[in-house]
Amino acid sequence: MKVLIVYAHSQPTSFNSALLRTAVDTLTAQGHEVRVSDLYAMNFNPVASAADFKERRFEGHLQYDREQKHAVAQHSFSDDIEAEIAKVIWCDLLILQFPLWWYSVPAIMKGWFDRVFVNGLMYGQLGRFDKGGMKGRRAMISTTTGCFPGMVAEGGVMGHLDAMLWHIQYGTLAYVGFDVLEPFVTWSVRYEDDGARALYLQKLAERLQRLDEVPLKPMHPLSDFGSDWKLKADIAPRTIGHQKFVGASVEPG
Amino acid sequence: MKVLIVYAHSQPTSFNSALLRTAVDTLTAQGHEVRVSDLYAMNFNPVASAADFKERRFEGHLQYDREQKHAVAQHSFSDDIEAEIAKVIWCDLLILQFPLWWYSVPAIMKGWFDRVFVNGLMYGQLGRFDKGGMKGRRAMISTTTGCFPGMVAEGGVMGHLDAMLWHIQYGTLAYVGFDVLEPFVTWSVRYEDDGARALYLQKLAERLQRLDEVPLKPMHPLSDFGSDWKLKADIAPRTIGHQKFVGASVEPG
Repeated sequence: MKVLIVYAHSQPTSFNSALLRTAVDTLTAQGHEVRVSDLYAMNFNPVASAADFKERRFEGHLQYDREQKHAVAQHSFSDDIEAEIAKVIWCDLLILQFPLWWYSVPAIMKGWFDRVFVNGLMYGQLGRFDKGGMKGRRAMISTTTGCFPGMVAEGGVMGHLDAMLWHIQYGTLAYVGFDVLEPFVTWSVRYEDDGARALYLQKLAERLQRLDEVPLKPMHPLSDFGSDWKLKADIAPRTIGHQKFVGASVEPG
Repeated sequence: MKVLIVYAHSQPTSFNSALLRTAVDTLTAQGHEVRVSDLYAMNFNPVASAADFKERRFEGHLQYDREQKHAVAQHSFSDDIEAEIAKVIWCDLLILQFPLWWYSVPAIMKGWFDRVFVNGLMYGQLGRFDKGGMKGRRAMISTTTGCFPGMVAEGGVMGHLDAMLWHIQYGTLAYVGFDVLEPFVTWSVRYEDDGARALYLQKLAERLQRLDEVPLKPMHPLSDFGSDWKLKADIAPRTIGHQKFVGASVEPG
């Protein structure tokens, strides 16, 4: 299997770095091919701009996703984007390794999504979700947080983990077609002792040795939705973003 | 009132730019003071790094949030961060104007959160959520999307809008103490005609003229949670991230 790990931490002494090394070593020992995009080490530019295209379909006002579609056909992305696209197309499994910042990925990784998950290849007229360009591939989040598990759970002060990761797992990875594995979360990493941290590394290694046993996040195929883009009446919601929600706005004052 | 608008679009001919101008003009006409952080025009650096600190509390391994706490006390952030912090502290209302990319903000704005919402001032030992540093202030998202409203609603193919914006509205804005106003969403902006677009500008102006009538997103004060960080048994969940969720993982194979 071919595995791409996209990694977003600046410190080689971080626990994220230890998780990365564990993943590389474990997967390599299993006979898999592993490539790493170390975004900080690469000085990856996260800011989408006109400079991302070597030639333009439309002059003047930049319509970023329309230029992406053109650049897919012309292979005219900037070199850094072409290189990252090639890695994503190459891989069977994408792993995102990052510290959780503001319920999300660090900006350097957000910009990797913005610039590399391109219209016309990852999604677009070709389809999205189970029709997305990356269908048949798998993706998994591995993240670290200072939170304790009970905080990020049903009724927990930080809200449900599925809500926290919804925009990444559903809105990004599943959107382009990946099957999304249950995330691997290292909890309260700063407050743990070396023994607990070693156990997290061991658990990650064990998971990567038995990837076929890792549960998938439940998603809805597009066929679950009607022509009005709503879940069909006979389909029970299977995600936190599709279930019935009774919350309402608070009146001001 | 003092209003800070943080804006993340590179094109002055974009509809985001038109929304920004409408907001500035409307709020100014109402007698409010308005400042704009035009992140693309500022060439804002979204990548958190050691360069964000003019002096360090700890040598060697960078613990970003601990250095933030030190830099708050020493006023030793890099000049670009100090300037943005001053604007946030100055404002009574924060408006985020951005195109929705991957269910989230563009990377240049994510990096503004990463670098400007600093530990020791916006959150930290001082508290978070209703005890956060920005308590008493309001914040509002104004975003544009190619989606149609029915897609981003209960049972819609993209999932509920509250799930999409959860990491921003709850995990970022409410986390640091802001009262969060209902978001202003410009739907399917590319597919609308000029009349429909003009109507969106008018609706935004009307909203900004009557800010005190805009509903707030329901949140839970910290007193709703017990010492186990879970919602107390007698408190009904009021957010999409706190409600009961019956989803489960799919067994592999």
